Amino acid sequence: MNHSENKAKVGFIGLGIMGGAMATRVAAADYPLHVYNRSRAKAQSLVDAGATWHDTPASLAAVADVIISIVGTPTDVRDLYLGNAGLLANARPAAVLIDMTTSSPALAQQLARDAQARSIDMLDAPVSGGEIGAREGRLSIMVGGSAEALARVEAILHCMGTNVVLQGGPGAGQHTKLCNQIVIASTMLGVAEGLSYARNAGLDVQTVLSSIGSGAASGFLLNNLGPKMANGDFAPGFMIEHFVKDMALAYEEALAMGHELPGLQLAQRLYQQLVETGFARAGTQALVNAYAWGKTDENH
Amino acid sequence: MNHSENKAKVGFIGLGIMGGAMATRVAAADYPLHVYNRSRAKAQSLVDAGATWHDTPASLAAVADVIISIVGTPTDVRDLYLGNAGLLANARPAAVLIDMTTSSPALAQQLARDAQARSIDMLDAPVSGGEIGAREGRLSIMVGGSAEALARVEAILHCMGTNVVLQGGPGAGQHTKLCNQIVIASTMLGVAEGLSYARNAGLDVQTVLSSIGSGAASGFLLNNLGPKMANGDFAPGFMIEHFVKDMALAYEEALAMGHELPGLQLAQRLYQQLVETGFARAGTQALVNAYAWGKTDENH
Repeated sequence: MNHSENKAKVGFIGLGIMGGAMATRVAAADYPLHVYNRSRAKAQSLVDAGATWHDTPASLAAVADVIISIVGTPTDVRDLYLGNAGLLANARPAAVLIDMTTSSPALAQQLARDAQARSIDMLDAPVSGGEIGAREGRLSIMVGGSAEALARVEAILHCMGTNVVLQGGPGAGQHTKLCNQIVIASTMLGVAEGLSYARNAGLDVQTVLSSIGSGAASGFLLNNLGPKMANGDFAPGFMIEHFVKDMALAYEEALAMGHELPGLQLAQRLYQQLVETGFARAGTQALVNAYAWGKTDENH
Repeated sequence: MNHSENKAKVGFIGLGIMGGAMATRVAAADYPLHVYNRSRAKAQSLVDAGATWHDTPASLAAVADVIISIVGTPTDVRDLYLGNAGLLANARPAAVLIDMTTSSPALAQQLARDAQARSIDMLDAPVSGGEIGAREGRLSIMVGGSAEALARVEAILHCMGTNVVLQGGPGAGQHTKLCNQIVIASTMLGVAEGLSYARNAGLDVQTVLSSIGSGAASGFLLNNLGPKMANGDFAPGFMIEHFVKDMALAYEEALAMGHELPGLQLAQRLYQQLVETGFARAGTQALVNAYAWGKTDENH
């Protein structure tokens, strides 16, 4: 049975690790899916499963009732939404546009104003929960915008996330996501420092995790990335180059508020060293390489 | 029915927030309990419930089959165990001594050697999980010592903790606990920085927690201490002055290994500022006060 005739046409732009998994969830819920991506290859599996490919964002915008984007940087977001070929100029009347990229709160506010001027609803709705959360539809989705616009697309967002929370007006979703990344930045320092200490002390890191993974230090990052650090598995769930971008956004926003975040700055410095030593496209757990980690193999 | 005649006599020394809750669990499992504490007042509720008070550690050691200690600092541990009036000189033959204080790995190794010379088994077994974990018997207990000694007391440890793991020989429990504290140190930076950013950005901190508490930033500290930070509730579960002691231990150990831990050092610096501004006996969540937290009330 095909319910899709009653359902909003969803345009999905940005089919990377996160976007690809999220779009797959939307398609699996029988929403007619329209896709665009800079590199077409990443759209192929969705197209094979029935999604409609568009050669331009404008072509997609002309047919979609709801447009979701999750692209790389605030510059990518700006390019996608603004200008004559952009989503705002080409979206259908009464469309809802949802940017799920981790991006600038100020840009989110600007896009929401421009959208409103065209009677289009716009939400900023970045996510957390990683590749696993995206694949399983268990993301945390942090929404900025109007409650009315959210109500119109909430069912679609629930295909991707179990926890969909309106944080406030335009930009509030992005601010919340930056809080999330600020917490993660220093937490990653703690996980990498604790486990590198364990290895230096001659302990078995997996056995240490079996103790500390159930006490006050426990958490998503220790329990999910700790075992990967212990195994030297640096395959990306979340790439360092993306995290470095997010931390820079958070730092700039905090700076504009006159708010000092020394833990964030320390994490930025260590991750920047990793970018410079070839780990840009490794997962964030490769932070252990900023510590005396490899060295200790000689001692054991 | 009273099973206690078949059970080991347990001596418990150190009845603070953690020790008091842990001793209560042991007594509740019908072990005949013998108690000593520097300040007798803290023993009163256990004595009222049937525990036997001792005026000195030596008196307690003369009757106990198993002795558990959880006191303040490595110096307190040294004073308790060594010397003519200490536990090692006065313990019964074949006693098992368990130090659950967060203390120095090197001291744990020294005490284990001294104990072995007297045919006494000694374990280092510090814990994590906070006051809640202690009250509910859900601590994570990190053990250093011999598997044989652990087997003799495992049932008693399981009154206090669900997760009892042998990490290695003497000192390995302490090293594991220091790993735990190192992870916590920077994680606390992340939680305090993320939530102070949220407040500065004009978000509702509790609503932010309802989003980020279920994503990749989620964890025991964010989810348990974050709401307290948001409410300005600085009552201690774990006191800053104790955490500062633990971080100093971890720093000294890492220094001895030639291992740099900049996140730990940053946390030490910020927590030291809090000690100097009157927060020594506040809970570790008072770290938000090291950031521009109170100030923003004027902006909202």
